[in-house]
Amino acid sequence: MRRIGSIGVIGAGAWGTALALTAARAGLAATLVGRDPAVISAIGNDARNPRYLPGIDLRPAIAASTDVADALAADALIVAVPAQAMAGFVETLRGRTRPGHPILLTAKGIDRRTGKRLSELLVEALPGCNPAVLSGPSFATDVARGLPTAVTLAAPDEVLAAELSQALGSPAFRPYAETDMTGVELGGALKNVLAIAAGIVAGRGLGASASAAVIARGFAEMRRFAVGLGARPETLMGLSGLGDLMLSCSSLQSRNFSHGVALGEGKAAAAGTLVEGVATAAIVARQAAESGIDMPITRTVAAILDNRITIGEAVEDLMMRPLRRETD
Amino acid sequence: MRRIGSIGVIGAGAWGTALALTAARAGLAATLVGRDPAVISAIGNDARNPRYLPGIDLRPAIAASTDVADALAADALIVAVPAQAMAGFVETLRGRTRPGHPILLTAKGIDRRTGKRLSELLVEALPGCNPAVLSGPSFATDVARGLPTAVTLAAPDEVLAAELSQALGSPAFRPYAETDMTGVELGGALKNVLAIAAGIVAGRGLGASASAAVIARGFAEMRRFAVGLGARPETLMGLSGLGDLMLSCSSLQSRNFSHGVALGEGKAAAAGTLVEGVATAAIVARQAAESGIDMPITRTVAAILDNRITIGEAVEDLMMRPLRRETD
Repeated sequence: MRRIGSIGVIGAGAWGTALALTAARAGLAATLVGRDPAVISAIGNDARNPRYLPGIDLRPAIAASTDVADALAADALIVAVPAQAMAGFVETLRGRTRPGHPILLTAKGIDRRTGKRLSELLVEALPGCNPAVLSGPSFATDVARGLPTAVTLAAPDEVLAAELSQALGSPAFRPYAETDMTGVELGGALKNVLAIAAGIVAGRGLGASASAAVIARGFAEMRRFAVGLGARPETLMGLSGLGDLMLSCSSLQSRNFSHGVALGEGKAAAAGTLVEGVATAAIVARQAAESGIDMPITRTVAAILDNRITIGEAVEDLMMRPLRRETD
Repeated sequence: MRRIGSIGVIGAGAWGTALALTAARAGLAATLVGRDPAVISAIGNDARNPRYLPGIDLRPAIAASTDVADALAADALIVAVPAQAMAGFVETLRGRTRPGHPILLTAKGIDRRTGKRLSELLVEALPGCNPAVLSGPSFATDVARGLPTAVTLAAPDEVLAAELSQALGSPAFRPYAETDMTGVELGGALKNVLAIAAGIVAGRGLGASASAAVIARGFAEMRRFAVGLGARPETLMGLSGLGDLMLSCSSLQSRNFSHGVALGEGKAAAAGTLVEGVATAAIVARQAAESGIDMPITRTVAAILDNRITIGEAVEDLMMRPLRRETD
């Protein structure tokens, strides 16, 4: 049995820092690697990350470095870079990982250019590695503060999923081991699109009933799409699907939801690259159309983001759909 | 084909009044029956219900009466009395309904004394009637204000479900026709228990991640219980299950959620009879134990309400459960 005693984390943003801290709290030797020397120095020397996790004490101590090799030297690697940066990032790891190297991805999205899941990009670039993904309802600041959090940790290798869950788990941070990569990754990606939809409904002041209806109907299409691509239905109903969907659709801490709110309020919000659901909406709407999977909410969000339809027209469209059986 | 041109509504509280108004807006002749002459007079003469829907203009006009016979004379009957009053109420209808009389129930709960669904009480008392239930994410004030709302309307008689949905539907109020009474009724009842759980987590300040985890794990047990009793899994994932769960777990407008918040904040909140989840938690926890269905969240809520466990112990208990596969 593999023993995981040390973790390297790449990406010293809020989520990477929170995960390195979580690993340290679980008793692992944690090394956090980032590009910005000022951030890395603050983490290593002052146990602080004032840029991304202001006011949070990063102890037990995390080793910090600007050299990716320091993260690769650990027993397992956590990659906390943004979804749309993943394709480029995994290329930089070519030839630098060990056979069976456990690599845990934590971004939520689908590659905009290829339509692939992030773990697919990973195993294509590094065929010998042992991939895993972490997803579920979690905000970096909550995790860093030690508020109780439950997430899903999936790997095709069931033993690795269990080992990583065990290694990273602590009373306040509970990863549930899973093997359904497709379900976990698609759930995490699609919930961002639906969070934009829920935000639009909230920003437009349509009321809590309409929000709940959009989320429930959105969940049905998220499940339909993921199951069509091979996910287990149960996975979509778990923490990384339904749980994360609920969190993202109800909190302004979610960038996707707050982007939707701004759209619903009629503020011309420029879609920054950090709003992951914007990239995902376009690619999923296209894939769904190609596969003949009905996704009216995703399609509508994509059309709004593309300026092909106004929000007024979208609401009219969604609410006026002919009455029919709910579970068709 | 039956034609529904008129609706009688019994119960002039917020929900009964909102539904009568919705029927009137859909072009039906609506008659609302209540016991309080002052409320009935305000509705009939002033198009207002200042006690239960203050500030809302009740037009198009609703006929109002204190005589149940006036509601029974309509083509279909809507019963909007509280869940725990249903057993007594249906007895009063014995011998007063027609064969095939369409009767639509709108309360959410399980009879505390017998453990039966409300439609089971109805058909036992009135074996010749044609039962239906309306459930889903909806607040009376939102519906009365004309905010867009989508709900589930179930009847064992598929034609009746479609007819009632068609008759009551309007651009802002969309009932989806269903036939799975068990799924719709159990979803509506169980979400109240989980709303108390979510309220406790919020009131205790455990953070949004913990809330989402409790709701997602709670949804899994709600589904397990309902499917065990014959519900279709898809129904639980629809508006009347998941949709209503999300609404109730996120809004202080929900009495169950706000009761949980008060408990979580350590305020000794007396459990009023209007907090339907209190009655449901006890009966479902008992039924689940008898049937061997694992419902840790419902069991914990019942134990808290019963003062058999403190909230501190409950949180410890739920978060410290051994790490295991999520979908077990």
